Amino acid sequence: MRTLEWVPSSAALQMIDQRILPERLELVTYTTYQEVAEAIRIMVIRGAPAIGAAGAFGMAMAGFQSSAQDGEAFLKDMETAYQVLNASRPTAVNLKWGLDQMMSLVKLHQGSIHDLRNALLAKAQQIADEDVEINKKIAAFGAELIDDGDTLIHHCNTGALATVDWGTALGVIRLAFEQGKKIHVLVDETRPRLQGARLTAWELQQYGIPFDIISDNAAGYFLRSGQVQKVFFGADRVASNGDVANKVGSYMLALAAYDNSVPVYSVFPSSTVDLTLSSGDEIPIEEREGDEVLDIQIKGERATPRGATARNPAFDVTPNRLLSGLVTEKGIIRPPFHLHLPETLKGA
Amino acid sequence: MRTLEWVPSSAALQMIDQRILPERLELVTYTTYQEVAEAIRIMVIRGAPAIGAAGAFGMAMAGFQSSAQDGEAFLKDMETAYQVLNASRPTAVNLKWGLDQMMSLVKLHQGSIHDLRNALLAKAQQIADEDVEINKKIAAFGAELIDDGDTLIHHCNTGALATVDWGTALGVIRLAFEQGKKIHVLVDETRPRLQGARLTAWELQQYGIPFDIISDNAAGYFLRSGQVQKVFFGADRVASNGDVANKVGSYMLALAAYDNSVPVYSVFPSSTVDLTLSSGDEIPIEEREGDEVLDIQIKGERATPRGATARNPAFDVTPNRLLSGLVTEKGIIRPPFHLHLPETLKGA
Repeated sequence: MRTLEWVPSSAALQMIDQRILPERLELVTYTTYQEVAEAIRIMVIRGAPAIGAAGAFGMAMAGFQSSAQDGEAFLKDMETAYQVLNASRPTAVNLKWGLDQMMSLVKLHQGSIHDLRNALLAKAQQIADEDVEINKKIAAFGAELIDDGDTLIHHCNTGALATVDWGTALGVIRLAFEQGKKIHVLVDETRPRLQGARLTAWELQQYGIPFDIISDNAAGYFLRSGQVQKVFFGADRVASNGDVANKVGSYMLALAAYDNSVPVYSVFPSSTVDLTLSSGDEIPIEEREGDEVLDIQIKGERATPRGATARNPAFDVTPNRLLSGLVTEKGIIRPPFHLHLPETLKGA
Repeated sequence: MRTLEWVPSSAALQMIDQRILPERLELVTYTTYQEVAEAIRIMVIRGAPAIGAAGAFGMAMAGFQSSAQDGEAFLKDMETAYQVLNASRPTAVNLKWGLDQMMSLVKLHQGSIHDLRNALLAKAQQIADEDVEINKKIAAFGAELIDDGDTLIHHCNTGALATVDWGTALGVIRLAFEQGKKIHVLVDETRPRLQGARLTAWELQQYGIPFDIISDNAAGYFLRSGQVQKVFFGADRVASNGDVANKVGSYMLALAAYDNSVPVYSVFPSSTVDLTLSSGDEIPIEEREGDEVLDIQIKGERATPRGATARNPAFDVTPNRLLSGLVTEKGIIRPPFHLHLPETLKGA
């Protein structure tokens, strides 16, 4: 089962509702791009590659929703959809990348609007299919980094659920395990939304990979006591100097790994690279509602005082100096990173 | 109201049950040292200075519990109580310090067992009273470090609830606020037990000090974006080279502060220093039950898959190179730290 699937019979996009995993595996179905934008915003679907594909399907839905009779009116409708979808999450560039792919098709199209609508759907489907292929290529490169007997720390969720299927950083770990390497994963729970504790732990259970969940705070202890050989996480936007914006906490994890000479790898499809940015300082960091921090219970009791407020940045930037390698479908890039070189890495 | 109080009418020790704050403020009462040891273990009471005082009262209770008729039998009973109480939490040295104070009294006592029992209770009461006085001295030194307009990050709970009253690092912040300095506190929620989100936030509300709760992961973002002027936390055991064992996550927080040239201060009474240890690597790190990590709900849904396991170290060691100062009741110690110098710092 993919994270998101097009349902031709009802012209709808079906998604796994990632907010309620692991307690229940439920599917939700959307028929408008506005619903898809909201699903991205509230994180029914999340993970940079997955929302790139979701955005592309949203654009295809916008094509079907438009009643425009001429190309100019259709373009206007599509531009509106682009804006609505692009505003749903600001940090991951894959969303914009997926939307741009679709908009290019709109602008280059020569035939009828009817044909364009079908071409948009085919393109979204292609983006989704290619995401899976790209992830398997990433895994083939990345798995070479993992040795038999390694204990790895993984942050957030970068598995099948973060992509259309297979995953990025977790896909690397999965392939290494399937190759017969004995590994153990320390799963950063990844506050505030607990994508590690909820989604990565659930995926690892499905794959039979041994793991323990840890509080994000505990990573430093395990790194400093020599119990970890490598750290893996994904990326939501990568600047051309190799600075990586990823789920909040990645920076502190990378610092602790670096302080103990443990290699840190960021794993992502090349669509995650934003060549317009010279450094990570230019990446917009989404701040989400404080309730994501405040609405937490332990043993059934609310853990924060009534009336308390919270700050909730969803991402941070790991400077390139802390990274040992960037793992993409084109290969592993080692420092010093110069991602403006087109032969090294360019948008797929 | 103190975190723990002796109730003479019932020869009992009364504590605030810190497991259920901030939802409810409830008191629990214990009449045996075995109950006190269990209360320390399950963290009804926590915070290095508070458990030092609780241990002392536990020893006083053991004195009343003993039916020994002669000094030798009484000493044996007290040694048993010492072992039971000391085993309840391994990392904070204040517990052992409190127990040692009481055991010295037993060994030096010349009079009747009846007199010794009363002397033990008086000594425990004195330790509790002195904790409050020491904390106020610490605050007077530490408040000088805080400037008008500062935003501070604080880890775990080091307030009145972590001590007999007033607090250590949070006591410093409280005094600076009472001196009229405009400050804002970013409260690390402090997973897994959320002492920051539950206890520090609750205390700050009582004092009227402005704050926001943050996920521990978010500290790096705020430090890197220049929004934080100082970092404060407590200590559970300090080696003679100034390495500080404190609540898990302190190390990563200190790394992130250091990486951004933000000063980090560890605040503690001198009873927290363990001069027998040359470095933090010798400090035993307590690992607690995985359920503390796994038993978490968001929006009422369990956030970890059934059958998942967790690792749960409760402390980590921040190396001295990351610390700008150690704040004690004897003054602020600046690096390089040489805590073996008796004139600089010795057990109170």
